[in-house]
This record gives sequence, structure tokens and C-alpha cells, in this order.
Amino acid sequence: MENCCEGAGNFFGRQKNTNIRVSLPAVCFVWQIAMIILFGVFVRYNYESDVREWIEFKHSHNLTSDIENDFYFRYPSFQDVHVMIFVGFGFLMTFLKRYSFSGVGFNFLIAAFGVQWALLMQGWFHSLDPITGKIYIGVENLINADFCVASSLIAYGAILGKVSPVQLMVVALFGVTLFAVEEYIILNLLHCRDAGGSMTIHTFGGYYGLAITRVLYRPNLHQSKRLNGSVYYSDVFAMIGTLFLWMFWPSFNSAITEHGDGQHRAVINTYLSLAASVLTAVAISSMSQKRGKLDMVHIQNATLAGGVAIGTAAEFMITPYGSLIVGFCSGIISTFGYMFFTPFLEKYFKLQDTCGIHNLHAVPGMLGGFVGAIVAASASVDVYGREGLIKTFAFEGDFATRSVLTQGGYQAAGTCVAIAFGLVGGALVGFILKFPIWGDPADDNCYDDEVYWEVPEDEETIPPVLEYNNHMIHKHHDISESNFSVEQS
Amino acid sequence: MENCCEGAGNFFGRQKNTNIRVSLPAVCFVWQIAMIILFGVFVRYNYESDVREWIEFKHSHNLTSDIENDFYFRYPSFQDVHVMIFVGFGFLMTFLKRYSFSGVGFNFLIAAFGVQWALLMQGWFHSLDPITGKIYIGVENLINADFCVASSLIAYGAILGKVSPVQLMVVALFGVTLFAVEEYIILNLLHCRDAGGSMTIHTFGGYYGLAITRVLYRPNLHQSKRLNGSVYYSDVFAMIGTLFLWMFWPSFNSAITEHGDGQHRAVINTYLSLAASVLTAVAISSMSQKRGKLDMVHIQNATLAGGVAIGTAAEFMITPYGSLIVGFCSGIISTFGYMFFTPFLEKYFKLQDTCGIHNLHAVPGMLGGFVGAIVAASASVDVYGREGLIKTFAFEGDFATRSVLTQGGYQAAGTCVAIAFGLVGGALVGFILKFPIWGDPADDNCYDDEVYWEVPEDEETIPPVLEYNNHMIHKHHDISESNFSVEQS
Amino acid sequence: MENCCEGAGNFFGRQKNTNIRVSLPAVCFVWQIAMIILFGVFVRYNYESDVREWIEFKHSHNLTSDIENDFYFRYPSFQDVHVMIFVGFGFLMTFLKRYSFSGVGFNFLIAAFGVQWALLMQGWFHSLDPITGKIYIGVENLINADFCVASSLIAYGAILGKVSPVQLMVVALFGVTLFAVEEYIILNLLHCRDAGGSMTIHTFGGYYGLAITRVLYRPNLHQSKRLNGSVYYSDVFAMIGTLFLWMFWPSFNSAITEHGDGQHRAVINTYLSLAASVLTAVAISSMSQKRGKLDMVHIQNATLAGGVAIGTAAEFMITPYGSLIVGFCSGIISTFGYMFFTPFLEKYFKLQDTCGIHNLHAVPGMLGGFVGAIVAASASVDVYGREGLIKTFAFEGDFATRSVLTQGGYQAAGTCVAIAFGLVGGALVGFILKFPIWGDPADDNCYDDEVYWEVPEDEETIPPVLEYNNHMIHKHHDISESNFSVEQS
Repeated sequence: MENCCEGAGNFFGRQKNTNIRVSLPAVCFVWQIAMIILFGVFVRYNYESDVREWIEFKHSHNLTSDIENDFYFRYPSFQDVHVMIFVGFGFLMTFLKRYSFSGVGFNFLIAAFGVQWALLMQGWFHSLDPITGKIYIGVENLINADFCVASSLIAYGAILGKVSPVQLMVVALFGVTLFAVEEYIILNLLHCRDAGGSMTIHTFGGYYGLAITRVLYRPNLHQSKRLNGSVYYSDVFAMIGTLFLWMFWPSFNSAITEHGDGQHRAVINTYLSLAASVLTAVAISSMSQKRGKLDMVHIQNATLAGGVAIGTAAEFMITPYGSLIVGFCSGIISTFGYMFFTPFLEKYFKLQDTCGIHNLHAVPGMLGGFVGAIVAASASVDVYGREGLIKTFAFEGDFATRSVLTQGGYQAAGTCVAIAFGLVGGALVGFILKFPIWGDPADDNCYDDEVYWEVPEDEETIPPVLEYNNHMIHKHHDISESNFSVEQS
Repeated sequence: MENCCEGAGNFFGRQKNTNIRVSLPAVCFVWQIAMIILFGVFVRYNYESDVREWIEFKHSHNLTSDIENDFYFRYPSFQDVHVMIFVGFGFLMTFLKRYSFSGVGFNFLIAAFGVQWALLMQGWFHSLDPITGKIYIGVENLINADFCVASSLIAYGAILGKVSPVQLMVVALFGVTLFAVEEYIILNLLHCRDAGGSMTIHTFGGYYGLAITRVLYRPNLHQSKRLNGSVYYSDVFAMIGTLFLWMFWPSFNSAITEHGDGQHRAVINTYLSLAASVLTAVAISSMSQKRGKLDMVHIQNATLAGGVAIGTAAEFMITPYGSLIVGFCSGIISTFGYMFFTPFLEKYFKLQDTCGIHNLHAVPGMLGGFVGAIVAASASVDVYGREGLIKTFAFEGDFATRSVLTQGGYQAAGTCVAIAFGLVGGALVGFILKFPIWGDPADDNCYDDEVYWEVPEDEETIPPVLEYNNHMIHKHHDISESNFSVEQS
Repeated sequence: MENCCEGAGNFFGRQKNTNIRVSLPAVCFVWQIAMIILFGVFVRYNYESDVREWIEFKHSHNLTSDIENDFYFRYPSFQDVHVMIFVGFGFLMTFLKRYSFSGVGFNFLIAAFGVQWALLMQGWFHSLDPITGKIYIGVENLINADFCVASSLIAYGAILGKVSPVQLMVVALFGVTLFAVEEYIILNLLHCRDAGGSMTIHTFGGYYGLAITRVLYRPNLHQSKRLNGSVYYSDVFAMIGTLFLWMFWPSFNSAITEHGDGQHRAVINTYLSLAASVLTAVAISSMSQKRGKLDMVHIQNATLAGGVAIGTAAEFMITPYGSLIVGFCSGIISTFGYMFFTPFLEKYFKLQDTCGIHNLHAVPGMLGGFVGAIVAASASVDVYGREGLIKTFAFEGDFATRSVLTQGGYQAAGTCVAIAFGLVGGALVGFILKFPIWGDPADDNCYDDEVYWEVPEDEETIPPVLEYNNHMIHKHHDISESNFSVEQS
């Protein structure tokens, strides 16, 4: 029976060639060499990381202490964000029973490529010196590169288990490119504020991933159903990802906000919003199940919705209880999403969203964008002070005369730009990924590390099983022997 | 046989209703809504996180740099403490073979609720502005909220596996309330110093949990004995918790000490004390077992005793070798506790202490309190300098004339207050938890995630077994076929 | 058959006595007491962690803010390095199927001892006050102690699974001692720069471990072959180690560099080098396997080579693309090492290198040393500025007139000193470890936690198996019953 099943699997999957022995090394080498050349042409240290320029800067600004170097304002937050990108996202995606290597490993690969490409793309749009034609980088650029790559990792969540690492490299290449453009439009042209990237990262990343998975729809994905689920320990591993994301989200939302009160306030708001979303996620999860049992999917994901939804407004004067309300609502919406929207979208819109990024990123991100718009529109001199209003919303230069109401309108528009970029860009990338050259797995071979990894053979298996193995064989013998004896008697 | 066993289980446990589908969501929603209302009435940003006030403060104090914002002194420590609370405590409690979801998940739930309630309770006692009637919060309040909740998480360790999440919410509600009161008495009225919370957090939390578990004594807990132990991988998961607690303990003990030398010294003392307790815990563990084998319970827990015991004295001039001595002794005491006290207390005092918090928190905490008293009493102008003595012990205002000997006496008294609050408060909460409405598990159903979680069914099981499964079935076939052939022949 | 095998194992291994019930506690107690005495005689707080002296320093230097305390420049990096030492190295060594307790646990033990001994040894060589005869410690000493111990943990990688914890304590004792001497020669006498310790930590630690494992060569190690490999979840655990090492490596290489631009630049260079080595490690790994499948050994280790190889040059003006090139090459070399050098060295040089430290530390470290020499030799006033050149290479005092070319020569010489110290010191320590008193395991008993740990019995096994167990038994019954019926018919 099983050999037969397997044979059938091979038969249906025969047209799929998952051999990536040429394509993956080729992509890695060519792109890495391209990075080296482009960095050689364009990227230099900025004045805070260049020994000559920092000494000159200190002299010219009469600085007596190195503590004014932006490094000391942002480096702790940078490291927290770095942990979110590699351990947070990586381990959150280990929850499948046989896809933990790919979850954490491919996340590692595409993030490591993505940050390099992001330094270039964001550099060209934001930090290019018009005179020298160089991009000058410092710690804030490293944070932004991590942010940029986060949107592609979100997209990976939707297609987890159904694509090859080569396809993921393509997702990251285009994801970073599209991100840099939409970020430029939202932050520079529309002059939106988006500290934690509710719009630019989560909304864009969410819809980007959803569009890709829609185009890559697999009608026969049920053939891999046996592997599309968790086991006990894979769920515990995923909690490592959840907790590091949850704990460091205040750093994420405050990493590039204004020095001083800006970073301080973004941390408080995010901390509170996250705490509230834990309680409502637990409440809805418990309400939905027989005997009030909790569902690990909700705990692993919906508890984070508060961090996404407060992203844009985190640096604003949303007030502590305002943050709690945002977390309260987003926890509910996200958990409902896992219960109802995901099955609905799969059934009626052919959206196969492995991690449910629709509920954790797309919708809470969109919510965060509109919350940001409302909070911006209702900002007042009374609360912010005149100087504070200018500082918080950067009403300077061309935007010196913008009113808070206009700002609110542009914030809302920015959210729509993020959605549009995600959907159109994702559809485009989806079609590119349909070329039969990328080594993606067959429908009955999804969610399986065996396709792209040398998985340990476990001949001897893990010890409890080994012991039991012997045990069973003995039992077996007993029974069959007794059979024999019965027969012989 | 098995169905029979299960039937018997159901029979004995029939009076217990573990359905929390109404109570858990109700508690989460009502309490979260209460938090929103109370935050709306009471909580505001402090002058360092409010854009208007920080700008005014900088102007009025002629500050040129944002680096003077307390955020930059405390935020890295805050994030480390945050990791200890959620990953440290959470993963430390994954060691049971079938209670990892609850260990890390319920820790997450009650900590997320507890920090909100702590911001209010501690705010009312410590930061309430008498004129405006508001609580103004900043990063130090977030750290204190994390500290406050730690005492309830310690108490969770004693009752791990034997209570429902609704009961844990009650433990956190009262734990935080009691903490705020005893902290007010110890720090404000008695004017003790307790940087790392040996008294306020560990002694109180330890005895609070012990009193609760004493009141909730289950004479038939042996019916769940099969699940009250670890397996190989659950022990490895628990080491994640141990190590993050161990590594970040210097941040815990220094997070709210004086800027500059205070934080610096607290880190050095904690680092040294922890290092010493690892060696003595290993030594005693090895001495106690056949062939010198180490016991994971000791390595996971007693290695941390140095951090607990140096808590109060960490900011004092205890000297580096003094810190080593504290760690040396606490490692020994704690390991002996796991070997002798825990079984003794269970047998003669009906104390069922799942994680052994008696040995990791109650006793080392008490030790830390008295070490702090002795070190305070022996402080001298010679060592601290006059200004340093005032700064270290806050001999200001009403306490300007207090001598170090008196201070030592008050420190010792503070430890006793913490014990008393723990025991009385815990007994009270224990009786509340005995009402048959909280959905706690039956005696033969403890330490089991199945009661409160949708646990993955593992039909196909983890892969080694899967493979083996096929293998067995084939063998099976062979044998039964051979049976057939024998029969047919 | 199995009992027979086991009997044979006992027979061959009978001469080995792994009882460490006296030796391990004795070593722990004696050495810890020695630490307390030596700290009592020698170690004091430095002026930044002593309350009296810090107040005086602030007065005498007219400092208004505590932020100038070195604590605030280095503490976040210190905590990151601390995580690398205990979780990074610890979990990286959990990859073996039945040696996870020892991997993470013994790492914990020897690191906790090693940092104490390192504070003394490095103190005597670097921070001893000639007048008072005391060592004054602060946060930079804690970082250096962590660094120092890293070299012994690297050596542990080579002998993982083949030595007793008592032997490991000896490895750490001599490792720290040798490190302090070679570091003194390299940094002080040769006046090399080595921010991230490519030479002092990785080259020395790598060759130290390789020399030890060569002397301890076991011709019959194949008897433990069944346990010298990973299983699925042990590989996922190891990824925790890999990622925390990878993420925090920028902190490692920048932790003790110059304030300001020095720390800033070291972070950027390390970040880039690491990113590049991920891509080339993946590329080579994929090229080497049938169907392009990735090998977890490469992903867990070779991705880190970029951090090792940029260690020395991280603080220099190597330029961003220079860092990418270093990462590019080291990722390739390291992965090739795992594929070819390790088997080659084992076959022809009798080097049994469990973790492949030759490929992750020895060779990339040596590469890093020579890269540092070249970058130093090509430094120019044009790029660094005159003041910057003096600051970066500490051309002060006796070395005020040294040219960059000479500096480059000394850097190369420093690398050779590190190799020599590693090889000679390791051989020496290896011979000491050959005395038959240390309780090391027999050849057929290596890589097994059972030897030194109370391993949970798993009688009931983990639940999926339990459930499946029942299932199988039922199936079994069905079949045997059907057999009966066939027979009866």
C-alpha cells in the first residue's frame, strides 16, 4: 500500500524537478558577487563610523564625548531587531512537523541576502549623496535594512512549505526592491510617519505574500495535508520565535524614532498594546474551542497583533490607554482571522496562507495604518506643544505648513499605497515564480524538509523510541511465537 | 485495560469540571477592560516620554543632548529583564514531559496581565502625583512592573501543573496587589534598599507560592505521578530558560540601581556570585549521585541561586570576593534543598512544590535579605565616602540621620515583612482558589496539557516513528504472512 | 544480539572508570575556594564601579552626567557577548543526538569557572596596579573574561563527547592561562590590534583544541559511531546556538574597540561579512550534495566563518565591500573544510574533530589574522587622517614611530604566535589529560550523556509514541485475532 502510495506520489510529481544543485549555488554566487561590486562602487562608512570624519565632526561641533555618536542611541535596539528577524521570524516558522530546517534555515538565507540588497536599494532612495554619488551607512541603515527584509520574511510565511529556496531568493530580491520604492513614496513623497512600519512593512509584506500565494495556488495541495500541521515539540520551538518577537517589539517600533522622548514613548505604547493583545487573543481562543481549550496557533500568532497594529502610532501621543485599546482590538481581530478568515479565504479565494499572515500582518498592519491616520489627524498643539508637533510629524521644509488633518489624510493614503504595492507586486512576482525552472516541490511533497535538506536518518531513532522499539519487537515475538505455538498445538 | 484505566480516571475525577470556556474569556475580557478604564483615568506619559514636557525639560535644564533621558540609562537592562520574565521563567517551566505548552503559555498570559496591573498598583503607591492624581510612567516603571510580576511567576513554579489558567490569573491579581503593598512597606516605610529584589521579589514570591500550594494540598497527587517528570528534550528546552535567566541576571539586579557606579557595581557583583554558584551546584549535584552523575534539576535551578542571594547586596560595596562567597554558599544551600528539603517538606509539611521554588527563591532570597542587612550594617565612610554613603543608602530627607547599623536592622526587618506577606497572603489566596469554580484539574489529570490545550494529535507521529511505523507494519506483514503460509502449508 | 553487543562494550570498556563522584566535586570546590582567596587578595572595583572613586572622578573631571561611565558604552555589547558564550556556544554543541545535556551543561560549567580565572590571569597581565598590587575591574574586564573563556569553549568543540567534565575543567584552567600569556605577547609586546580576537581567540583556541584532540586520539572511536550524529530536533536546537552567535557577532567584534567610530565601524564590517558568508556557505553546501540538498552541518557552522575572519580587521577602515569579500571567501573555505579537510585530517592526521573547529575557528581565524595584517599594512593618512591612524593603531608611547607596514608585519607575526601557543599548549594539555585519573569515557561510550548525567528514563516515552503504542497493540490484536480466526476456521 505505502509503496504504492509513494509510487503514485512520484508519478504525479514526476514533472517537478526539485534539483537545485545548479540554480541555488548560481543565484547565491552571482548575487553575492553583484553585491560586492555594487558595494564597491556605492557604499562607504558615514561620518559616525569613519575614523577621520568622526574626529573632524567632534572637533567642528565641539563634542567632548563619543556618547553623542548615534551608535549609542540605536545599537541596543538594533540588536533586538536583529534577533526578531533571525530568531523571531525563523523560529516562528518551525511550527510544522517536518519543515523546521527550512523554516529557520531559509529565513536565515533570504534575510542574509536581503539586508545587503536593502542597504543598496534604501541607500539609493534615501542616503545617496548627490555630489559624491555614494551611499554613507551607519547603524540606522542597518536597522532599516533589517526592517526592509522583514516584509519579505512576512511574505515567506504565506508560501511556507510550498516553494524552493531559489524562489525565496527571488521573493526577497523583488520584495526588497518593491519595499524601497513604496517606502520612498510613503515616507518621502506622501511624508507619512511610520515608526514601526505598520504600513510599509506589515501591510505591504502581508499583501505581497498573499498575492504571491494566490498566483501560486495549488489545487491538489491536500496531497501534502499529512505534513501541514504541528507536533508537540515543533510547537514549543515556535514559541521561542513568538516570545522573542513579542519581547523585542518595543525595540522594533522605537528603533528609528526620534531620540529621547520619541524612542521612550514608542516603547511604552508598544509594551502596553502587546500586553493587551495577549489577553484578548487568549480569550477568543478559549471561547472558540470545546471545553475552552487554547489553540497554539492563536497563542503563537495573535498575541503579536498588538505590536503590528501600534506600529505607526507608537511614536505619537496616543496615550497609554489608547495603546491598550489598539492591542485589545487587534488581538480579537487577529484571533477571529485565524478561526474564520483563513478557512474562508482558502475556500472562496483560493488563498493558501500557511502561517496566516493575513491575520497577523495584513489586517493588523492595515488597522495600524488607519489608527495612525486618526491619531495624527487628532494631534493638537495643546498635547504636543508647537515644537513637539513639528518634531513628531517633521513639519519642516516643504511640509512646514501641513496641518494635522492633512497629515491624517496622507497617512491613510499611505496605507492604501502599501496595499496596492503588495497586491500588484506580489501578483507580478507570483507569475515570475510560476516558470518551471525554480525547483519547487510537487503538490504531494510540500512542507517536507527532505526535498531540500539532508535530514538525519534517525536509524537508531531518538532513545525513547529505541527502547520502545526493542520492547515492541519482543512483544511481537511473544505474540507470533504464541501464534506459532497455537498453530503447532 | 487502558480504557478501563481511563474510565477509572474519569470516575475519580468526575467531580472536577475543567471547562473554562466561560470563565477564562470572562476573566480576560473583564480585567482587560478594567485596565483600559483605569489607565484612562490614571496613567499618563512622564516628562521623559512626553514630547511637550521633554522639550520643556531640556530647555529649562539647558540640556543639549537627548542622551540624558533615562531611557538610555535603563532600556538595555529593561529588555534583558523582559527576556528573563517571558523566556527565562517561561522556558524554565517547560521541563515537564507533557506540560510545556502550559509552562510557557500560562507564564505568558499571567505576565502580560500582571504588568498592566502592576503599573497601576505600583503607580498608586509610588508615582501618584498628589496634585493631578495621575500616574506618570517611563521606562523605570516598565522595569518595576516586570519585577512585580516576577513574584507571581515564582509562585506559579510551586503550583505548576495543578491549577487552571483562571486560578493563575487570580494568583497574579493578588500577587501583584500584595507585592505593591509589601514593597511600599519595605522600600518606603522601612526605607530598605533592595536593588535585585531578594526580599521583595524572591522571598515574598517564594513564600507566597509555598503557602498557596500548602493550602491546595492534594493527597492523591500521586495519581498523576506518571507525568510529573521530564523527558530528554523537555530538559533541553528548560536549559534555554535557565541560561537566559543566568545570563541576564546582572541586568536584573542593576536595572533600577543608581546611574553610573551603582549599575556598574551591581553587574560585577551579580556576575561573580552567579559564576560561583554554578561550581558549587555542580559539585554538590555530583557528590549526591551514584558514579558522580549530574542531575538536570540542580543544573537548571541551583546554578541561579547566586543571582537571587546577591540581589539586595548587589549595589553595595560587598567587594568582588564577597560576591563569590555569597554565590558559593547559595549554590550549596540550594542544591541541598533540592536533595533533602523538598522531599522533607512534601512528606512532613504537605508542601507539593513542583519546581522547588523553596530552594531557588524562598531560601536564597531570605539569605540575600540577611546578607544585605549585614553588608549595610558594616558600611563605612572609609569605603563609601560620605557622599557615597548618602547616595547608596539614600540617607536623605527623613532618613538623613539614620546610621548604617540601624539601616542593617531595618533591612533584616524588611526580610521578615516579605516572609510574613508571602505566607499570609498566600494562605488567603489559597483559600480563594479552593472554591470549586475555577476549573482546576483532577488529581489524576495534573501536569497534562491536554486539559487546557488543543494538543496536536500526532497521528503520523514524529518522523523517526513514522519510518519505524512502516517498518513495523512490514515486519508485521511478513510475520502474519508467514503465519498464513504456515497455516496454509 | 543487543545484549551481546552491550556485553562486548562493557568488556572492552571495563578498564575505564567514569566515576567522577570524588574528582569533579573536589576540583569544583578547591578551585572555587582558590578563586575566593585570590579575589580577596587581588581584585577590587575600578574607579567606575566604586562609589567613592566615581564620585571623586566626576568632581575632579567636572563631569555632570553619569553617562560618561564606560558602563553605558559597553554594557549592551557585554550582554550580547555573554549570550554568545553561554547560549551560542552551548546550544551549538547540542547537535549530537544523545549529548545535548553535556553540550550545553559542561559549556556552562567551564565557562563559569573560566571567567573567574580569566579575571585574575588577564588582571595580572593587563590591569595590575604596580603600587597597590591590586587588579581593578570594570565592565571591560568582564567582556575580556568572556572572550578569554571563548578560546577554551572552542577547544571543547574538538573534543566534544570524548572527555569527562573534570578534563574539561583542566582544559579551561590551562586554556585561560595560556590565553592570557599569548594575549599579552600579541597585544602588548608585539602591539598588535585584535578587536574580535581572530588571532588571540579563534586561531589560538582552534589549534589548542586540535592539538588536544590529536594527543587524545582514539583508534577505536568507531565503536561510538552510532551516537556521533544528529537527529531532527537536536539539529533544530543547534540552530539556536548558531543564530545567537551569528546575530550577536557584531557585538563581539565591537565590544572592546574604541568608543564612537570604532565600535560603530566594527559593527558594520561584521554585519556585512557575516551576511556574505551565509550565501557562500549555502552555495557550496548545495553544490556538494545530490540534488542540491543542504547539509545542516554547513548551515550551523560555516555561516559563522565571516564573523571569525573579520575579527581583527573589523575596527580598521577595511571598507564595506572589503568586509563582504572577507565573508565571501571565508564562507567558501569553511564549507570546503567541512567537506574535505575534516575527513582528510581524520584519516591522515588522526585528528578527531567533533565540531569541525578546524574549519570554523582555526582556518578562518588564521585568515582573519592575515587579512588584518594586510589591511593594517595598507592603512594611509589619506583614509584615516593622522589623528585617526594614531587612534586606530594606538601608535603612542613606545610605538609612536611605528609605520603601518611594520604594524602589518607584527600583525602577521601575532597570528603565528597564536598558532604556536595553540599547538604547543594543546599538546602539553593533551598529555596531562592522558593520565588515567580523569574519568573519561571508553571508546564505545563516547557521545553519550548517560555517562555523566541522570538521564530521564522515558519509560512512558513521549506521548505520540505512547498513543501510537496503544494503537499498534490494538492493530496487533486485530491481526493476531484474525490469525486465530483463520486458524479456527
